[in-house]
Amino acid sequence: MWNNNKLTRTLGIHYPIIQAGMAGGTTTPELIAAVSTAGGLGTLGAGYMTADEMNETINKIKELTDRPFGVNLFIPELPEHCEEKIDKANELLRPFREKLNVAKPQVGQDSTENFAKQLEVIIQQRVAVCSFTFGVPSKEIVQRLKQENIVVIGTATTVKEAIINEEQGMDMVVVQGSEAGGHRGAFASSFTDAMIGTMSLVPQAADHVDIPVIAAGGIMDGRGVLAALTLGAQAVQMGTAFVTTVESGANQQHIDAILTSTEEQTIVTSVFSGKPARGIQNEFIRELQPYEEGLPDYPIMNTLTSGIRKEAAKQNRPEWIHLWSGQSPRMSKKQTVNDLLADIVSQIDGIVHRR
Amino acid sequence: MWNNNKLTRTLGIHYPIIQAGMAGGTTTPELIAAVSTAGGLGTLGAGYMTADEMNETINKIKELTDRPFGVNLFIPELPEHCEEKIDKANELLRPFREKLNVAKPQVGQDSTENFAKQLEVIIQQRVAVCSFTFGVPSKEIVQRLKQENIVVIGTATTVKEAIINEEQGMDMVVVQGSEAGGHRGAFASSFTDAMIGTMSLVPQAADHVDIPVIAAGGIMDGRGVLAALTLGAQAVQMGTAFVTTVESGANQQHIDAILTSTEEQTIVTSVFSGKPARGIQNEFIRELQPYEEGLPDYPIMNTLTSGIRKEAAKQNRPEWIHLWSGQSPRMSKKQTVNDLLADIVSQIDGIVHRR
Repeated sequence: MWNNNKLTRTLGIHYPIIQAGMAGGTTTPELIAAVSTAGGLGTLGAGYMTADEMNETINKIKELTDRPFGVNLFIPELPEHCEEKIDKANELLRPFREKLNVAKPQVGQDSTENFAKQLEVIIQQRVAVCSFTFGVPSKEIVQRLKQENIVVIGTATTVKEAIINEEQGMDMVVVQGSEAGGHRGAFASSFTDAMIGTMSLVPQAADHVDIPVIAAGGIMDGRGVLAALTLGAQAVQMGTAFVTTVESGANQQHIDAILTSTEEQTIVTSVFSGKPARGIQNEFIRELQPYEEGLPDYPIMNTLTSGIRKEAAKQNRPEWIHLWSGQSPRMSKKQTVNDLLADIVSQIDGIVHRR
Repeated sequence: MWNNNKLTRTLGIHYPIIQAGMAGGTTTPELIAAVSTAGGLGTLGAGYMTADEMNETINKIKELTDRPFGVNLFIPELPEHCEEKIDKANELLRPFREKLNVAKPQVGQDSTENFAKQLEVIIQQRVAVCSFTFGVPSKEIVQRLKQENIVVIGTATTVKEAIINEEQGMDMVVVQGSEAGGHRGAFASSFTDAMIGTMSLVPQAADHVDIPVIAAGGIMDGRGVLAALTLGAQAVQMGTAFVTTVESGANQQHIDAILTSTEEQTIVTSVFSGKPARGIQNEFIRELQPYEEGLPDYPIMNTLTSGIRKEAAKQNRPEWIHLWSGQSPRMSKKQTVNDLLADIVSQIDGIVHRR
């Protein structure tokens, strides 16, 4: 079962299980190292990190494991800078800032420069795997990374986007079903058209690209992993299942929200960052959702709400935090990474054995 | 693989594959008989039929097969009868009626009476399986059917709805993922909360009910069937895959639309019937979608658009027909039911054998 997989050989891992590179502090060096040590692929969610922060974190990961791991980067976007939208958003956010005593942040700075520096760190650090979300890097970047023997993985939410990833030269592509928690990776399809369930997306993508497909969205245990492999994926990427592990850096309110939620409680919303993402319904979403269409673009909206969310976590106000979760929170458990992976493997062995 | 399943034994079928009881003419006696003869469970979509029409059709099915088959009924609903909404809808539909030369229909008649008559036919005809959509029948009805040795199957779109089905005494429950084509079966959860992907819904439902779970949504081939069984389902229900078979009664425009569409082209809309359903985008949807919120309830809206859709099919205007499809149209094929089922079985045998 486990030895017959080109993808695991390419990545140098034992189990075809990738921990999603969730940005914003969830992917601690401890989490990443635990996943890679247990035979999966840990991934640093470096999307919001400066190149220096990322470099330091990679050093820490390397102190904890000599197994391969990945780093996930966000393709930079140049948002429309509309003062009117920003003023309106700040007006909507003022009550939250006042209650939390948080200052209004400055909007600005070009993320393209940081992205170039991040890529240099990836190369200097000889990171095993570099994955991308929110688009595809240029062919030059892809080739540069591949020349350094860095495996390059893209993200797609439709067959069309999977094909673009292949054409761009990516080694593999994560296909993100509509069940997935956190940000939607759609970049060439409209967000609404790109809400394709994992059961539909994986086989259709696998039928249309030759590069290995990695399934994401709703996968939490051995049943989901084996189902995804059955659908034509060569590996899975799991996010929510790792958020609630002991090694996760997610704040406690976020973990508790996942552990106590049902499949009906998540919603896809742009109100936290300006880009659609799936998280558990709370007061912040309910308050801002009516204004969703008129909010500033990502990443401006992300900058505007970032301080509120950080301070809300400190002041234990889960109703104002982004509580990213996929559609399977009932299957979440508070456990170690090692136990999560061991359970997945033994569950799969059990299913295969019974047939 | 195939002999070890309580569900198939209970239903008296060979393969755990149920053809969805799609209303509106798709489920011809030929289709139902072909599915049941091939070892699955054919199902008559009798939701819109009078008891007499249903009775005649059951007689025809029995002439074609002596294998078990099912009949699907809609739980009757008493819609809000709002003249203002009906007038507004008729105003929106007038251009379509004029172009097609279709008369404005009368709205009315209570569906509860027909439902009671349908149940009497089911019992008199000793139909093997009776399935329900849009709610659960009363416990008295469930017990009456079970006393007659009729297997009773419900439909759920969330864990909560699956539990309600179990509590009501249903023998089994179809859990309908968000990928599914046609009408959403949600009845106790809000439609928007109940858009749960099959990958998330099946294992969470299977963990919370003791009755067998039947997976629906996005399943088109052996990969999907085996994946669904892996997730904890004991059978699958497939709709779209059967619409394009040779034996299907769907109109040619509908079949052609599925065969040529991608996963991005379906949308969930209430504009055809007053109740959310997934179909392929077309002009009718685009024209009416902006007014969706203000349209009359199901089944009033269904009555108002029914003539337009029938005549549009006759006049070969697919842009004005409901083109129900799940999110996997790229996997659709024009083939016989026998070939579809044989392909599924051999694909599954191949996957299991390779492990």
